[in-house]
Amino acid sequence: MAETTGTEHNDYTRHADLPVRIEPQGLVLERSTVFGLAAALGLIILAVILGGAGRAFFDPPSILIVILGTLAITAISYSVKEIRLALPLVAQVLWRRPRDPNDTGVRLLQLAERTRRRGLLQLQGEIYGLRGDPFLQRAMAMLIDGIPPEEVERNLTFEIHAASQDYQRAVSMLRRAAEVAPAMGLIGTLVGLVQMLGNLNSPELIGPSMAVALLATFYGAVLANVIFLPLASKLERNAASDLLLHQISMLGVQSIGRQENPRRLEMLLNTLLPPGQQIKYFN
Amino acid sequence: MAETTGTEHNDYTRHADLPVRIEPQGLVLERSTVFGLAAALGLIILAVILGGAGRAFFDPPSILIVILGTLAITAISYSVKEIRLALPLVAQVLWRRPRDPNDTGVRLLQLAERTRRRGLLQLQGEIYGLRGDPFLQRAMAMLIDGIPPEEVERNLTFEIHAASQDYQRAVSMLRRAAEVAPAMGLIGTLVGLVQMLGNLNSPELIGPSMAVALLATFYGAVLANVIFLPLASKLERNAASDLLLHQISMLGVQSIGRQENPRRLEMLLNTLLPPGQQIKYFN
Amino acid sequence: MAETTGTEHNDYTRHADLPVRIEPQGLVLERSTVFGLAAALGLIILAVILGGAGRAFFDPPSILIVILGTLAITAISYSVKEIRLALPLVAQVLWRRPRDPNDTGVRLLQLAERTRRRGLLQLQGEIYGLRGDPFLQRAMAMLIDGIPPEEVERNLTFEIHAASQDYQRAVSMLRRAAEVAPAMGLIGTLVGLVQMLGNLNSPELIGPSMAVALLATFYGAVLANVIFLPLASKLERNAASDLLLHQISMLGVQSIGRQENPRRLEMLLNTLLPPGQQIKYFN
Amino acid sequence: MAETTGTEHNDYTRHADLPVRIEPQGLVLERSTVFGLAAALGLIILAVILGGAGRAFFDPPSILIVILGTLAITAISYSVKEIRLALPLVAQVLWRRPRDPNDTGVRLLQLAERTRRRGLLQLQGEIYGLRGDPFLQRAMAMLIDGIPPEEVERNLTFEIHAASQDYQRAVSMLRRAAEVAPAMGLIGTLVGLVQMLGNLNSPELIGPSMAVALLATFYGAVLANVIFLPLASKLERNAASDLLLHQISMLGVQSIGRQENPRRLEMLLNTLLPPGQQIKYFN
Amino acid sequence: MAETTGTEHNDYTRHADLPVRIEPQGLVLERSTVFGLAAALGLIILAVILGGAGRAFFDPPSILIVILGTLAITAISYSVKEIRLALPLVAQVLWRRPRDPNDTGVRLLQLAERTRRRGLLQLQGEIYGLRGDPFLQRAMAMLIDGIPPEEVERNLTFEIHAASQDYQRAVSMLRRAAEVAPAMGLIGTLVGLVQMLGNLNSPELIGPSMAVALLATFYGAVLANVIFLPLASKLERNAASDLLLHQISMLGVQSIGRQENPRRLEMLLNTLLPPGQQIKYFN
Repeated sequence: MAETTGTEHNDYTRHADLPVRIEPQGLVLERSTVFGLAAALGLIILAVILGGAGRAFFDPPSILIVILGTLAITAISYSVKEIRLALPLVAQVLWRRPRDPNDTGVRLLQLAERTRRRGLLQLQGEIYGLRGDPFLQRAMAMLIDGIPPEEVERNLTFEIHAASQDYQRAVSMLRRAAEVAPAMGLIGTLVGLVQMLGNLNSPELIGPSMAVALLATFYGAVLANVIFLPLASKLERNAASDLLLHQISMLGVQSIGRQENPRRLEMLLNTLLPPGQQIKYFN
Repeated sequence: MAETTGTEHNDYTRHADLPVRIEPQGLVLERSTVFGLAAALGLIILAVILGGAGRAFFDPPSILIVILGTLAITAISYSVKEIRLALPLVAQVLWRRPRDPNDTGVRLLQLAERTRRRGLLQLQGEIYGLRGDPFLQRAMAMLIDGIPPEEVERNLTFEIHAASQDYQRAVSMLRRAAEVAPAMGLIGTLVGLVQMLGNLNSPELIGPSMAVALLATFYGAVLANVIFLPLASKLERNAASDLLLHQISMLGVQSIGRQENPRRLEMLLNTLLPPGQQIKYFN
Repeated sequence: MAETTGTEHNDYTRHADLPVRIEPQGLVLERSTVFGLAAALGLIILAVILGGAGRAFFDPPSILIVILGTLAITAISYSVKEIRLALPLVAQVLWRRPRDPNDTGVRLLQLAERTRRRGLLQLQGEIYGLRGDPFLQRAMAMLIDGIPPEEVERNLTFEIHAASQDYQRAVSMLRRAAEVAPAMGLIGTLVGLVQMLGNLNSPELIGPSMAVALLATFYGAVLANVIFLPLASKLERNAASDLLLHQISMLGVQSIGRQENPRRLEMLLNTLLPPGQQIKYFN
Repeated sequence: MAETTGTEHNDYTRHADLPVRIEPQGLVLERSTVFGLAAALGLIILAVILGGAGRAFFDPPSILIVILGTLAITAISYSVKEIRLALPLVAQVLWRRPRDPNDTGVRLLQLAERTRRRGLLQLQGEIYGLRGDPFLQRAMAMLIDGIPPEEVERNLTFEIHAASQDYQRAVSMLRRAAEVAPAMGLIGTLVGLVQMLGNLNSPELIGPSMAVALLATFYGAVLANVIFLPLASKLERNAASDLLLHQISMLGVQSIGRQENPRRLEMLLNTLLPPGQQIKYFN
Repeated sequence: MAETTGTEHNDYTRHADLPVRIEPQGLVLERSTVFGLAAALGLIILAVILGGAGRAFFDPPSILIVILGTLAITAISYSVKEIRLALPLVAQVLWRRPRDPNDTGVRLLQLAERTRRRGLLQLQGEIYGLRGDPFLQRAMAMLIDGIPPEEVERNLTFEIHAASQDYQRAVSMLRRAAEVAPAMGLIGTLVGLVQMLGNLNSPELIGPSMAVALLATFYGAVLANVIFLPLASKLERNAASDLLLHQISMLGVQSIGRQENPRRLEMLLNTLLPPGQQIKYFN
């Protein structure tokens, strides 16, 4: 599949002279997330409507206490700036630009091959074509500008670390919110129950009051189980796939910077790629 | 039991010239899983029927909200492709092709002995006989085709890793579903309770409405505790037994590839096999 | 207390020529387990009888659904063979043959001293006397039969590993059952509640029906907290004390096999024995 | 961005002769904490008042049993002295003196540059200017007093360790209190329920008594989820940011004590600082 | 603060010739534990009495089932002997002899200095004065009796290990009891509820019966949260402070046995002592 001895090869592939393009992708809905969320919420709403009392499920004070209370308590543990940084990541769970680690790997091999044949400066013209992957674009620009490979590597490591910390913070925020929401639901229901029990004189109101009290628990359970927890676990998976893409770019940029044999790069990339998505560039 | 010094032996066993056969096995019900599941569900259904109100336990909206809701929320965290990959593994919990690590070990010793006596190419005729174990068949075919042992090993390692990740993903899906199901049950029951409490005017409906509300909790508890959790822990055990089989094949293929002494292979296999299932090939 | 330099000593003790006997012990009730179990169950039964409604606590359908359901679901995760292997271990929690690590250590020192003075073959006559400790008996028999010490060691390691895995499996079965029992209790109670709520027309039956529904929860709580969890933690402690005995025998057999100085063996055994149970053989 | 070879440079920056000032900061409210707490408590109070029964939520015995009981039980595990040490740290969660690791880093680089150019004793005049950061001030004073760098380092390490242990203890106190509060709430509610159930003769009191009983649960849930848990997680983050500041000072003091190249110090500081807050002193 | 080079010093302090005394301390109440326990129990009793139904909270059958049941089930997992060993440790949580690691350290430095100046045998007269710290007394007696330092060390290590295991066992017993108590409370309440529900015919008894049923849950919650859990965490802290004292004695005895420089001992002791309790003996 690939030679591993590190001896020199001259049999460059026909890809080496094609332009290297990573086109910017449009935002795409994450099918399974959006479909799953819509289905779960739809089922709950359907059950509410089938019961013929849709309006009874809308109680602004309970909504206030559960949703805003959850946000307020979650905000205590994070600075305003951290919350602002986390929002775009959470939005990515619903729609994001699809990226394919295999494709990035193939582009890197093209770049590596061309560098080997014609030299690093010759890549100048390809930088613009990489605008679909800003991380890789920045890295290649630094290399071509003559910044030493070790320093490019150090900068990229910082950037990867920062991105991974941003993801972790957003995930822990969502998990924290998923813990707080049922607690706020319980508090809201207790408020409602205490108020109802103080008014047992008007028995015709017991039922509706208790229904309203239970709504807070209902909102808390839906928020935590249907919204926050699934988004947190999806976000964790997005973090892993972004990390993979960054590691692939990093590996490629290192290899290009040191002008190593592209066949060796292909082998290294294949140890990172999941089975079934292996690159077969040199065959 | 086995010599460990690595010196040469010529006393090959009489098995060495028998054809090596791993017959494809038919699908067999996993007795303890199917019996356990049937017994647990049967007991619950029996209790329902003995109570004389079997029909009261069938409530389509609650079934919808719990079963479909659980599936939808579980699906949020996984891509459509991952879910499709997991289904056959989950099905294996109920019926699978039985395989015996001891038998695979003995077949490998036969192959190793014959290779040692007659050479690797002589095994060409045995490949078809291994069709009952496709993993081993592919590995032997690669060896005979002259692919270097290190590369065969690397490919097999990838394949084992991929299989183990598939199992892990399926197990974590089942565990996630077992967390979601009671939460959806709670949500369904809260929907039912709120609807009932809004209609306290018709007291003759309180009982049945509350019964229906509780059904969602009941479905959630049954789904999680009787279906998802037991299947997850069974699947974990299947993963371990598949891994053992793959490791045994891997060890054998390494040993055959390097033309090592089959007695050494027997000793190595016996360190992997559980006590009581040790191979006694050379005695 | 013990010399550690490894030089030769000739001052053998007077024990060296006494016959070495480990008598088979009869089964003895584990006092604290049996007393604790009896006391806990007795207290619950007393409370039931004092309440004057003892018969009300016996409800066959609930018993069926909780006890059999728990067994069925636990069985899903284990093969029939594994369950059969675990039962005798669980029974040991109630009555077992008492064994004293200190006594085993002293017997090993006697054997070591005699071997040193008269040679290994001279121990032939003592093998039968060790029938109270089959593990040690098998080990000594192998040594006397001339099997090399490394191989005896390897076999014993396998046996210890197998025993420890059997214990672990039995403990995890009991813990699994302790998780399942309350879940089956909840399911049984939900079945009862739904049935009761469907029959609110006959108000004189509400109380008894609800009592019956609660019984399933009661059975589940008793099974998990009074039976399964305490047995599991006791079994874990039995596993640890068996492991200690096996390690002591192993250490002794290694030392005898290599004909090391018995004083060194005493020192090694004392590092394994808990403080307060140290052996003082050579003083 | 920075040279890493360790050769000598003479191009000192213009900052080197400016006075080094870390002004003492006034206490500043922690915006997100105070806003979050106020919002969460405000929402709960709003919900209580909107329900029109504000007074019903104030029950001194329940407040006593939950708040004082939680404090008493938490106090069991800690000595009086430890509790006294923890209070100022907990207060810091609400208002503290803002400090910027980047600014501290720049001050250290100034100090390092000046030391290199003019010698350590020349810094005497700057000590007073550091009064805004007592930790750094003490460290520099020790250096200038001629205490050997290794001993200054040892003392600072002790101080950092002590500070981090104080934080940990305060966090674990808050977490312990957050576990105790709901338990005391349950106990208070059980007391109330038992009292109410003993007085079922006066049915007009059932409602209010039960409301009062539930208040204890309400207080416990609010204390744990709105006060203790958010403060604990905020305090953990404060501990991390204090540790960062201390580590930066430590690194600077080490570098100054050993009279190393300030450019090397800048590089080391940048490995500690979070991405986006990197120092760019030498450009 | 201390020299670390290991060269000889002759400047002994004036403490060196004072008699070394560790007086036996009387038992002292642990203020925070006793006060905390008394306050928590007092608050609960106050709330009970304020409700005007103090007698209703005393129900012997529930007390039997919860307290005795918890003891019986906890006893299943431990042997009678282990329980007997744990009781004095648990009692220490309420009153114990206060000991100060700093003071022990200073005594050790005195002993070390005198040994260095006058030799080990000269300490004979001080042994009796150490009767306030039996562990240290035994250790010094062994040294003076000429037992080699390595063996003294080995014996002390055994003793420390044994003490720490005793503590761990007592802590795990208390934690186990804290898990069992609420479970027994639930079982007691279920017994009471089932009995009450079987007697719905006499409605005037429903309230009191249900009150009695809830008492078991109340007892379980108080036992676990007010008694067992706080004692367990206090006992863990006692274990840590005893371990520190033992480690300090161990370090001192090692140093004295090897006749090392006492200044080096002071430095080593200070690495063990918490910041703020550092010894300043040689200044």
